[in-house]
Amino acid sequence: MIGLSSSPIAVVFSVVLLLFCFSETTLSAPCPINGLPIVRNVSELPQDNYGRPGLSHMTVAGSVLHGMKEVEIWLQTFAPGSETPIHRHSCEEVFVVLKGNATLYLAETHGSSPGKPIEFPIFANSTVHIPINDAHQVKNTGREDLQMLVIISRPPIKVFTYDDWFMPHTAARLKVPYYWDEQCVQESQKDEL
Amino acid sequence: MIGLSSSPIAVVFSVVLLLFCFSETTLSAPCPINGLPIVRNVSELPQDNYGRPGLSHMTVAGSVLHGMKEVEIWLQTFAPGSETPIHRHSCEEVFVVLKGNATLYLAETHGSSPGKPIEFPIFANSTVHIPINDAHQVKNTGREDLQMLVIISRPPIKVFTYDDWFMPHTAARLKVPYYWDEQCVQESQKDEL
Repeated sequence: MIGLSSSPIAVVFSVVLLLFCFSETTLSAPCPINGLPIVRNVSELPQDNYGRPGLSHMTVAGSVLHGMKEVEIWLQTFAPGSETPIHRHSCEEVFVVLKGNATLYLAETHGSSPGKPIEFPIFANSTVHIPINDAHQVKNTGREDLQMLVIISRPPIKVFTYDDWFMPHTAARLKVPYYWDEQCVQESQKDEL
Repeated sequence: MIGLSSSPIAVVFSVVLLLFCFSETTLSAPCPINGLPIVRNVSELPQDNYGRPGLSHMTVAGSVLHGMKEVEIWLQTFAPGSETPIHRHSCEEVFVVLKGNATLYLAETHGSSPGKPIEFPIFANSTVHIPINDAHQVKNTGREDLQMLVIISRPPIKVFTYDDWFMPHTAARLKVPYYWDEQCVQESQKDEL
């Protein structure tokens, strides 16, 4: 035990500290899989960037976290310059932009790769519809945070991601579910062992 | 022809007027069934109260209007004192409250009628989950407008409405689709005749 003497007080202190750490880990676990309460304060929902610089993601109503079966809703905030990966999915997706300005890049996926995308400016108070299976990317090209509600169907989302617009569809990587919920899927599986 | 003479000028004027009226009717038709553009300004979407005092309804992304198959999104504003009917539906429904304060009345529907509901305060920045098939009603019990995004699954929505909380389920009225889109369903059907 580095730096700690073996006196009884130190042992009791160590045990209390370990119990405290364990309890903190449990209480602050990011996967409160307890169904979906009727009313929740969005300001109090857990948020994380899931390793993506400039992102704040909140699952407002989710499949893995809350048992939603048909729709899933996220609140996402992108700092200026941050972006989503280039990706596609076979579910319906709608954005409702609450704040900021950004660019949507959208490519039809009829060829062997997404190909050069079309650019659409998106802005506060706009709504955006992503055609099923079309590769797309959102980049905050504005000077303020971009905040939007993202609504998808048939959760959990199954996403193919691309390194660039000319990567073949056959090389795209599939992730199910996407970043935010995967840790909770693993915890849930562990509980069932 | 009341009040119009039969001179050639009057006839030409009448024809032009009729054509103008027809074209205005066509251009301002509330059912632009042309698919769903990629980006739309929510401020420019058609809104109506559909005969319900104090309501403003906008279909942000809809089944009948825009061809959505799995999710539908509305922006609804309720003046103080206004309310939804008591109703239930077998789809998932989530509210994201953008402005105002209100009361959600929610009854479990395990008996022969909804029964006395539980009251939940809802507020700006809250999210609300309606359990499938539970009868519910939202009333703006605050002093300001209530504005919320409503997300439902499996559109078009099929709604059972009740006159009061103790009306038997067997007496509830089914409407498919609900108010806002029915006119467009009729117009669409006429086009196919």
